[in-house]
Formats: sequence, structure tokens, C-alpha cells
Amino acid sequence: MTVSIITIGDEILIGQIIDTNSAWMGERLNEIGASIETIYSVSDTKEGIVDALKVALQKTDVVLLTGGLGPTKDDITKKTIAEFLDTPMEFHEETWERIQTLFKRFGRNTTPAHREQCYMPASATMLLNKRGTAPGMWFEKNGKIIVSMPGVPAEMKYLMAYEVLPKLQQTFPGKPIFHRTILTVGEGESRIAAKIATIESNLPSHIKLAYLPGLGRVRLRLTASGKTNEQLEQDLEAQVQAIQQILPELIYGYEKEPLESAIGHLLKARGLTVGTAESCTGGLLGHQISSVSGASSYFEGSIVAYSYRLKEILLGVLPDTLLQCGAVSEETVLEMAKGAIAALGTDIAISISGIAGPTGGTTDKPVGTIWLAIADKEQTETLKLQLGKDRQRNVQYTCVAGLNLIRQFLLKYYPLENVNEGLIQQEKSV
Amino acid sequence: MTVSIITIGDEILIGQIIDTNSAWMGERLNEIGASIETIYSVSDTKEGIVDALKVALQKTDVVLLTGGLGPTKDDITKKTIAEFLDTPMEFHEETWERIQTLFKRFGRNTTPAHREQCYMPASATMLLNKRGTAPGMWFEKNGKIIVSMPGVPAEMKYLMAYEVLPKLQQTFPGKPIFHRTILTVGEGESRIAAKIATIESNLPSHIKLAYLPGLGRVRLRLTASGKTNEQLEQDLEAQVQAIQQILPELIYGYEKEPLESAIGHLLKARGLTVGTAESCTGGLLGHQISSVSGASSYFEGSIVAYSYRLKEILLGVLPDTLLQCGAVSEETVLEMAKGAIAALGTDIAISISGIAGPTGGTTDKPVGTIWLAIADKEQTETLKLQLGKDRQRNVQYTCVAGLNLIRQFLLKYYPLENVNEGLIQQEKSV
Repeated sequence: MTVSIITIGDEILIGQIIDTNSAWMGERLNEIGASIETIYSVSDTKEGIVDALKVALQKTDVVLLTGGLGPTKDDITKKTIAEFLDTPMEFHEETWERIQTLFKRFGRNTTPAHREQCYMPASATMLLNKRGTAPGMWFEKNGKIIVSMPGVPAEMKYLMAYEVLPKLQQTFPGKPIFHRTILTVGEGESRIAAKIATIESNLPSHIKLAYLPGLGRVRLRLTASGKTNEQLEQDLEAQVQAIQQILPELIYGYEKEPLESAIGHLLKARGLTVGTAESCTGGLLGHQISSVSGASSYFEGSIVAYSYRLKEILLGVLPDTLLQCGAVSEETVLEMAKGAIAALGTDIAISISGIAGPTGGTTDKPVGTIWLAIADKEQTETLKLQLGKDRQRNVQYTCVAGLNLIRQFLLKYYPLENVNEGLIQQEKSV
Repeated sequence: MTVSIITIGDEILIGQIIDTNSAWMGERLNEIGASIETIYSVSDTKEGIVDALKVALQKTDVVLLTGGLGPTKDDITKKTIAEFLDTPMEFHEETWERIQTLFKRFGRNTTPAHREQCYMPASATMLLNKRGTAPGMWFEKNGKIIVSMPGVPAEMKYLMAYEVLPKLQQTFPGKPIFHRTILTVGEGESRIAAKIATIESNLPSHIKLAYLPGLGRVRLRLTASGKTNEQLEQDLEAQVQAIQQILPELIYGYEKEPLESAIGHLLKARGLTVGTAESCTGGLLGHQISSVSGASSYFEGSIVAYSYRLKEILLGVLPDTLLQCGAVSEETVLEMAKGAIAALGTDIAISISGIAGPTGGTTDKPVGTIWLAIADKEQTETLKLQLGKDRQRNVQYTCVAGLNLIRQFLLKYYPLENVNEGLIQQEKSV
């Protein structure tokens, strides 16, 4: 089954809203084995809709439209589809009765615009929308399927889940597609590609590999189709294991697990607590660690010491260290980490001090110089980053590096015996 | 100037990532008066790219592609465009030298894949990408313009801002469109619309008003065109002033000023310092305040006390208060704010404690109950929020409310005599 999605509305074209509907639909469709060929965002004009419909119907079996159904003037989707499919508009009594009942229940009066809304293309099968007043519409013509849904996310999601996806599965009882995603941190796309080059070039023809790079992270996505469900799962699992054997130190999780949640699992499995001492990141690392539901079992808190004064008072950094080595130095971040363990009473603390930019650099320490340290009561590790001039990017990247530093520290100094951590993570995230 | 955007990558079609690039591009293009006809999301296959290119070139003057530029095998954009435009691939010495220099600076080695990446379509004009290794490419053929950019948002944004938009404006010197954006916080869209209904219905025909709602904030965008530059600026200014007179307490800035930067201006103008004491936001508010370049002149630091223990030790919250009123209470946040002033030595401190969710609520204090307090050495103010069940949304919304609480506190207790703060803000942000 091949599918096109058409999103209707000027507000997406001019960037007023971000099209999150299509991503949600794409994910659901992908899960049932549909292949999404193209997503179109078009203006709410007759020409915009018709042009996209024509191209989409040439290319795919199914066209799903969202947006452009509603009581206001600029919603012309319905009429355009009716004209395009050469079917008249008819008053749909059932929809009108439903709207009247709903309005009565909320003690409101209907307006002539609401009655107008009940004229529907005659050839449409109506899909009951329990989240709103505008029903979905299902059309079949020349072996193709066209479905039109409201653009309000809750209404679209309801119609997809309870009407459209089941009907599509009935109509196209097709071949399944399986995905597995391996999440890595700490190396760039090309280095990972070099490391798994042999695996990649020996992939069986029914499995594809894609690299999805992000800030400091790369996701490896394996896609398989064309065999039985069991075979696909087995074949994907074999590839996942092969990659895991080559990149064990880079893999932090699988599928959609956030890095901070993976760190949480590692801390929980060891019964350890963590805190942060931050300067240039202003508390973002602590926020990220705390953003996982249930983080209170391993995250105690943070001290953000932006000024020299607070680095001394709250974290016990020695005035001499600041004077001689500066706030952005290995010596200072080490004292910050040790000081944070003392102040926060945690097992482990991580510290960050750097010049996030865009100004504030010197010849010795240009903008983008960032020092991190991690410590427990005995061991310490430090890391120096040399980043660019973009303040926000530097801070974001530093937090990814910080989370990875915690991960590496735990794996190095707190190994779990007889446990394949990669497999634990995999189990937790699948 | 008419524009199509083509976003390349299976990860968007299957909903693994949401296409935020296109919205950003749409907004920037709209600002320079370009009309965006269609946004296409296509798979990273030759067929997907070529099909979209063909349709897009028929409909618009300009086609902007993002994604599909990078060192790994699945990136075929470059070769597809070269074939489509019938131009050979050539080794681009400059790009190779730049990559080598960059890698040397970071003390890393290049791989053969990096060298491979330097083969470029011969007819392309290279656009220097200071945020990454893959340059942008500008093509002109038969009066049409095709631009290809990497899909990494920071790289795309850099190329758009410094290369693509200026070149497009040179190539299509169209009629000027002027925008003014008024930034408000603290009221919803319908309330604001009701307040400025008279202004809106009396707008001259060459000025349009749009409401752009965001989390806790609403932007009012005025757009004018069709007259001389001077006249447009004057007419917009008159409307801005009229709206300012009606909504003075809601306006925190103009154009693109972030709320945290507006707070920074207010603090700087008063020579005051601020710190935060956070629980459920985990340090995000402090991070936001610190995210403005130069924030060190008014932001001292934060104490994130996630646990009861740290609320007592670091912020001096009384065990009795926690026991009798709970961590999420007006009493606790007041003690947290007072404690933060003492611990951080700031003029003002703001505190937050709440149940971010999705679990942890009680009958008395359901998920989404959040208390905030702000204090200086004498005055205090508190605020209770009752939000939904979405953890991330609750935390984000709370930080907006927190920033607004600082703003209101400064305007109430530290008024600047004979100064129209709205105008100061406007000057700083334009």
C-alpha cells in the first residue's frame, strides 16, 4: 500500500504552525506496513488542493488529506474534492442531527453556518468523528482511496485510529515492514559508517540501513520487509546484535529512548544518585536529567554557580584555583565536581564550566572552550571540548557530552557483573 | 517570487522526526515577501527527489531542498541533482581543504568518506556553511533557482540567513513587505482580540493583523505592503503605538526578542541581580535566564533542590513547613525564595515547586499543581498554576510564567520614573 499525505493550510506554509500531524500519521501508517511516498503541504486554495491531489493520485494507492474542514470561509476542501471527483454536494441529515444534539447538550445554539457545514460530497462514506463536529470522508474511485479529515490533531488522531487505519488494513492486507533503531552517542556519522562498513555492505537485500545524525548523536535505522513477520524480526535482531558487538561503547539505547532516560536506567540499576554543578550551561544538564518521570530516585539537585563568588561559596572552589587557572579549567571543574558531591550529598557529581560564546574568549581559551569533570568519592574523569561560536548549540552539545560522560563513568567504574548492559537497555526501550 | 520547499529523508515520512525546518524557512521566506506554494517531504531516493523537483520547477521560481547532504551512502541528493541538471561531478578542492583544516583544529583524522563528500555538481555555486562540513549549493537553470542545503537545522539556518535569503532578495527585488511583531505574555488569544477589537476593525486595508499563539505567549504580527517604505513604516508604527496603549502590561518586547532577554534588559536597567530556587523545573528557568549572552551581569546562579533534604540544607526550608504544608505549597516556595536570596546573595530570587506529572498527584494537589514565589529582601509575591498532565508542557509553561512573574515584580516594585519601559524595550529589540 502506497500513501500520500496532503496537509492543507496557509499557516503551515508561512511557518505559523509546525506540521506535527503528518509525522504522527507517517509513524502510524509505517507501523501497518504502508509506504509513505510524499507529504505535501499546500495552501487552502482550490488550485493548491487539486494540483497536489492529481500528482498524489498518480503516484499512490491512497491519499490522506488533513485540514480545510470546518465552518469558516477559507475551508474549501470539501467542495474542491466534490468537484474533482465529479460528485454533487448533498445535505447530510445524520451529521446535522449530531451537531444539533451536541449543541443542545452544551446549551448552545447552532448558526446557519453549522447547517451549511452539513452539505457533503454525495459519493463520500462518512467517518464518525467523536472528537468534533466535522466528520471524516472516505472516497473510492478508479481503485484509489481518498480520505479527508479535519486538521485539529485530536480529531485527526481519533479518525485515523478508529476509522481510517482499520479500513486501510482491511482494504490492503499487505506485507509488513519492520524497523529497529540503534541509538549512539560520542562519534560522528562517518566514523560509525567506517566501523560498520563490513556489516553494511553485507546486509541482505531485504534490509536497509539509514544514518540519522543529530547533535552529538547518530541513530542507525534498520528497515526490513518482504518476508514473514518472524523472519523479519529474526533478521533484524541478527543485524542489531552484529552492530552491537562492534559499537558497544557507543550505543546508549534503542528505538525512541531519550539519552537522559538511558542514563536514568544506568543510575537506577546501580542505586546511585547524581547531581550537577554548572556554570555556562546554566542548569540545563540538571534539567535534562530531571526531565525523566521518576528521576527523583536518582537525581538530587544542582548548583548553578555562574559567578566566581558562588563557585567559591557554594562549591568550595579555592580562590587560588580561580585566580591561577581561571574558571574555565580542568582544575576548577574538578573542584566543582568534588564540591558538588559535598554540597549535594550525592554519590556522583558532574561539573561544567566553559565559554559558551558568542563573546568572552581569549587567545588561550577561545569561545567554545568547555571543561567537564565527573567524580565520585574516589575517581575523577575530565573532558575538554573545543566547540564553535554558537552559544545555544554549544550549551546543547555540552549537555549531550555531559550525559555521555556520566554513562561512560558508570560503565567504567561501576560495571555490572555478568550483565550485558546493551541488552538491558534494549529490553527497557523496546 | 514563488518558492517550493523539498525536504528529503525517509525519517520525516515515517514520522521519526518532525519537519521543523520547513516551518522556519516558510517564516523567513514570508518575511521577505516570497510566496511559498508547496512543501514536499520525499524519500531519499532518486525517484522521490526527481519527481518533486519536476513538479516544483513547473510551479515556482525557486526550489529549496534540505536534507540528503552528508558523508554516508544513503545521501544521494547531490548526485541526483547533478544528473537532473545534466552536470558532471567534480572534486571541489576548497571544500576538501576546509574539512582538513577543521579536522586538524579538532585533532581528528579525516576518513576516505570525507574526501568522497567533496565531489560536487560542476555547475553549482558553493555556499559556505560555517556550521558544518557540507556546503550549500546554488544552481541556476532556465531562469529557475535550485538551492540544496544540509538538513541539520543549525546548518540550514546559517545558510538561509547568510547566503540564501540575501541572494534571493538580490535576484528578486520585489515590492517591499514590512512586518512588526508585538510580543505579549500573560493572556490568551481571545482576550487580547477582545481588547483590541476596535483597532483591528479600523485597520487600513494595506495593513493586516495576525495572532500567533504560543505557550503562554501571543505574538501580534502586523504586515503592511503596497505603499512607499516610509509610509509603510509610519503606518505600522502608528498601529504599534495604538496597541501598546491598550496592552502595556502584556507587552514584553518586539520582533524576535526572547522573553528571557527582555527580563535581562529590565534587570540591567535597574542594576539588580537574580537567582532561582527550583524543584520540578529542574533548573530550566535558571538555564533560560542564563541563555542570554551577557547574562552574567544580572544572573548569579541557581539552586535546584529536587529532594526534601536539599530544600532544607541548601535553601533553609523548615522541616515543619515541608511536613505540614508539603513541598508543593505557598509556604514552601516562599521559604525557598527567601532561602535562595540568602544562599545566592542576590537582590531577587524566584522559586518553583510543583507536580509536573504525569504521576505524583493527590486529591488535594492534582498533577499540574505548581507554586511559584518571587522575593526581594522586603516584598514577596506568589502564583499558583493549575496545569494539565503533560510533564514537558507543564515545565515549559511554568518557566514562561516564572519569567513573567519576574517582569511583573520589577515593574511593580522597581518602577523607573519618567521612563516608558515599552519604548525602551522596543528600541532594544528592533
